[in-house]
Amino acid sequence: MTVAWNRYGKVSVRLVRVERRATPHELVDLTIDVQIEGAFESVYDGDNRACLATDTMKNTVYALARTPFDSMEVFALRLADHFADKSGVSSVRISATEQPWLRLSVAGRPHPHAFAQPGGERWTTVITRGRSSDVTTTRVVSGLTDLLVLKTTDSAFADFPRDEYTTLPETDERILATSITATWSYRSRAVDFTARERIRSALVETFAAHVSRSVQHTLAAMGEAALAACADLAEITLTLPNRHHLLVDLAPFGLDNPNVVFVATDQPYGLIEATIRR
Amino acid sequence: MTVAWNRYGKVSVRLVRVERRATPHELVDLTIDVQIEGAFESVYDGDNRACLATDTMKNTVYALARTPFDSMEVFALRLADHFADKSGVSSVRISATEQPWLRLSVAGRPHPHAFAQPGGERWTTVITRGRSSDVTTTRVVSGLTDLLVLKTTDSAFADFPRDEYTTLPETDERILATSITATWSYRSRAVDFTARERIRSALVETFAAHVSRSVQHTLAAMGEAALAACADLAEITLTLPNRHHLLVDLAPFGLDNPNVVFVATDQPYGLIEATIRR
Amino acid sequence: MTVAWNRYGKVSVRLVRVERRATPHELVDLTIDVQIEGAFESVYDGDNRACLATDTMKNTVYALARTPFDSMEVFALRLADHFADKSGVSSVRISATEQPWLRLSVAGRPHPHAFAQPGGERWTTVITRGRSSDVTTTRVVSGLTDLLVLKTTDSAFADFPRDEYTTLPETDERILATSITATWSYRSRAVDFTARERIRSALVETFAAHVSRSVQHTLAAMGEAALAACADLAEITLTLPNRHHLLVDLAPFGLDNPNVVFVATDQPYGLIEATIRR
Amino acid sequence: MTVAWNRYGKVSVRLVRVERRATPHELVDLTIDVQIEGAFESVYDGDNRACLATDTMKNTVYALARTPFDSMEVFALRLADHFADKSGVSSVRISATEQPWLRLSVAGRPHPHAFAQPGGERWTTVITRGRSSDVTTTRVVSGLTDLLVLKTTDSAFADFPRDEYTTLPETDERILATSITATWSYRSRAVDFTARERIRSALVETFAAHVSRSVQHTLAAMGEAALAACADLAEITLTLPNRHHLLVDLAPFGLDNPNVVFVATDQPYGLIEATIRR
Repeated sequence: MTVAWNRYGKVSVRLVRVERRATPHELVDLTIDVQIEGAFESVYDGDNRACLATDTMKNTVYALARTPFDSMEVFALRLADHFADKSGVSSVRISATEQPWLRLSVAGRPHPHAFAQPGGERWTTVITRGRSSDVTTTRVVSGLTDLLVLKTTDSAFADFPRDEYTTLPETDERILATSITATWSYRSRAVDFTARERIRSALVETFAAHVSRSVQHTLAAMGEAALAACADLAEITLTLPNRHHLLVDLAPFGLDNPNVVFVATDQPYGLIEATIRR
Repeated sequence: MTVAWNRYGKVSVRLVRVERRATPHELVDLTIDVQIEGAFESVYDGDNRACLATDTMKNTVYALARTPFDSMEVFALRLADHFADKSGVSSVRISATEQPWLRLSVAGRPHPHAFAQPGGERWTTVITRGRSSDVTTTRVVSGLTDLLVLKTTDSAFADFPRDEYTTLPETDERILATSITATWSYRSRAVDFTARERIRSALVETFAAHVSRSVQHTLAAMGEAALAACADLAEITLTLPNRHHLLVDLAPFGLDNPNVVFVATDQPYGLIEATIRR
Repeated sequence: MTVAWNRYGKVSVRLVRVERRATPHELVDLTIDVQIEGAFESVYDGDNRACLATDTMKNTVYALARTPFDSMEVFALRLADHFADKSGVSSVRISATEQPWLRLSVAGRPHPHAFAQPGGERWTTVITRGRSSDVTTTRVVSGLTDLLVLKTTDSAFADFPRDEYTTLPETDERILATSITATWSYRSRAVDFTARERIRSALVETFAAHVSRSVQHTLAAMGEAALAACADLAEITLTLPNRHHLLVDLAPFGLDNPNVVFVATDQPYGLIEATIRR
Repeated sequence: MTVAWNRYGKVSVRLVRVERRATPHELVDLTIDVQIEGAFESVYDGDNRACLATDTMKNTVYALARTPFDSMEVFALRLADHFADKSGVSSVRISATEQPWLRLSVAGRPHPHAFAQPGGERWTTVITRGRSSDVTTTRVVSGLTDLLVLKTTDSAFADFPRDEYTTLPETDERILATSITATWSYRSRAVDFTARERIRSALVETFAAHVSRSVQHTLAAMGEAALAACADLAEITLTLPNRHHLLVDLAPFGLDNPNVVFVATDQPYGLIEATIRR
């Protein structure tokens, strides 16, 4: 029997790159697949001497992302050229998908380092109408969910307690990203429900402007701003997953990484929830 | 043993409503859950005389959507009030989620009946770099995916052949909705990749303006517009799922439905694919 | 400009077929794509006279499923042969995916009409440990989720109330399918947690054996059986979505449909929840 | 304004634990949420001195998993007790979900270290029927997808080339896990399609028995076994994602980790594809 065709590689490599040499910051968020074909039949017999490790492919993506690029096509071509030179390779396929981020607009102006991915955003309401003996009560809880926001600076996390299982270093500079879910209860069923837009703006603009010492710290500021924006709100509950962006260690490749190259991770994630009340 | 708590209802009711009494058209896209609690213990013993059918709940959502409403909160309150009056009900919970649509901008002006849900939009590129003997070839195929667009008029489907399994009526007025996936090959690896934005605009604006006799008809127009917008394109392939919006039959409830109340369906769906070349 | 390649069809057609001419019943659950290529360029110019409607393709799948088949390959070949004879068609692609169902084993024997799809099944536990003043309380709530079960007979729904929005006919024979989520609280934190297996068997075997007048009716029987199976349970909450299987109307094609050909639907769905306590 | 309620923690912590002190190996695969409530209002003011880092919570899950446990309830209680003792905590919620693995049966006997998660498994077929001039051709390609298998030993990866971007250590002992997708073409449209079951057994039993030097190495063995099992197959294509299980470094907590505690990761992943032909 023979290996009639073969291809292998590393896929779903998550890369977030921040260009912060000037203001405003530039952000690009990519998912990359590296796949190669070639004379790798011996690998199928158990001889790995020709098998470029897929882990090496992943490292290469991050190392080559240290140098700026103008578009994902230019970066994908850079990767294709690199792997085409490897021994045994007859064909390289680089696939890249960009998750586009929009620069947040705050007070009518584009923000220098805060972004949104409003795509999956949904608006919600839950009406609960109950009756006990002769009393009827109606509760209106509206909200929004899956509004992704990210800021490339003005976020720190330090001074937290350390126990025998703590390894996290303190940081005064990190990416802060979250997917906002908010629910708020209205004072009555007869309010102006277009308040949603004002509340949304308050949440997003506060996220952008706040100098954050923790997700909790920013959550409280966002909640206060929402309550200030709409007198009809009794309280607001915010659920903020911490969508971690980890700085990639490029030192093994002789490169520094001054908050430029990050890996976006899905799990595990921090989850911060609180209700802010007047 | 006893039923200590119970709740039931119909969930994930998909409702799309078009208000077309004036220009511009207004569009609202909701997913609704109806859930009730009350004195339904007998149902758990097999006696259905107190059991409002969940199918009836679904019908009620569509029937009550025939009358205009200003916000989803107002519509959810209307549903809550309706079900609270039903026999045996002690509590009603109406949950609504709105998938927001943005009015498309064409030539800098808001379009009267075309909308986009750009949320999940992704941009793509695939580089294929091959080598045979001493010749190296590099192919760049870029694109976009998951760009949702919808128009509330200027779409028909008629004059198609009928066989023994055909039941679809002809129509000169329907909702046309799709999730655009496009891929195009560039003439070389050294083009201006910001062409993506011009191609995207050509696709979206043509979708909005075209008077459609079929998805295929609109696909060809979109492809031609994209090729016209960028001389660096050799060809473009479009994949257009037909995201069906079915008109709800309200006649059993004594109501007309002049293209106002629709159910959005996920599956099955039509899938139209073609490559347009100069 | 020219149409260099084209393909179209109907995809994600959901088909569930029950062969009930003998005992035991046979069940097959398929998702089918029909796609054709051919001389359809005129359709892209807006002339639909050559355009076999994708709705007709869907109808054809259901009509041709009225006749028994031995495997999905045989059925897919039947569809391919049918569409290959249509005018203008040069190539047909039929793709089928089978979601396999296992016959439930009850009391060690294969059940004649109850099935499970245990694939996505997950087991769950939630520990809540609280402290107020000097008292510590620990609550253990275990469960399972996403256990799919289906029975092809012994399920009815009739005698329910009818109002101005009711159109559902009564039925004494339907498919009953659900995805079981159960959570139960243990009497203490020091019980035998292998009870999960006994509770699971009680739920599944009761689902299979029960002669159901409603989902609620079966839910109560399942809950009672679980409590009877394990003395350490204080109560059990069951969440049972009604995964509707709708009988396809084949009369327009001159065919009867004695509970043989069904379409499985995702949304909307009934959702029945209750807590059963000793 | 005040923080009326708050809760935070680390969620979706993926833990795979192998007990290999005896034969057969025992495997448990959990997703864990740790959430705490308490007197953390100062954190919302920007003072982190009371804020146990969620990263510490994650580390704690892995460290406490070094010691064996009999059920996920017992492990979740262990975690709850640990976090309840932390300063400021009034309530702990530990949620665990188990993805159950079944021990593979090979030659009728339970395998000592190979497992399957057959839940999401689907069976596939694609018929392509074409016509050019007067010749009709029909191709039948059947397969299966999403069949998860895992082995806890007999898998190595060493002797691979190292370049300037290689950091992966060689290993002679790792978890090998994949989600099998296979497609095979039949010699004609008139074969016995129940061959699927024999092919499936050949794939799964070879995965279990093979002493693997790489995913490619095992892929070739699986493909050859499938071809040997069914004379009607012309060739088979296997797509094997490498679902990486990373050994957790417990050294910072003074613990060894002799291939016991792993983190299961979703992305990136290796992807190995090949066609094996007679």
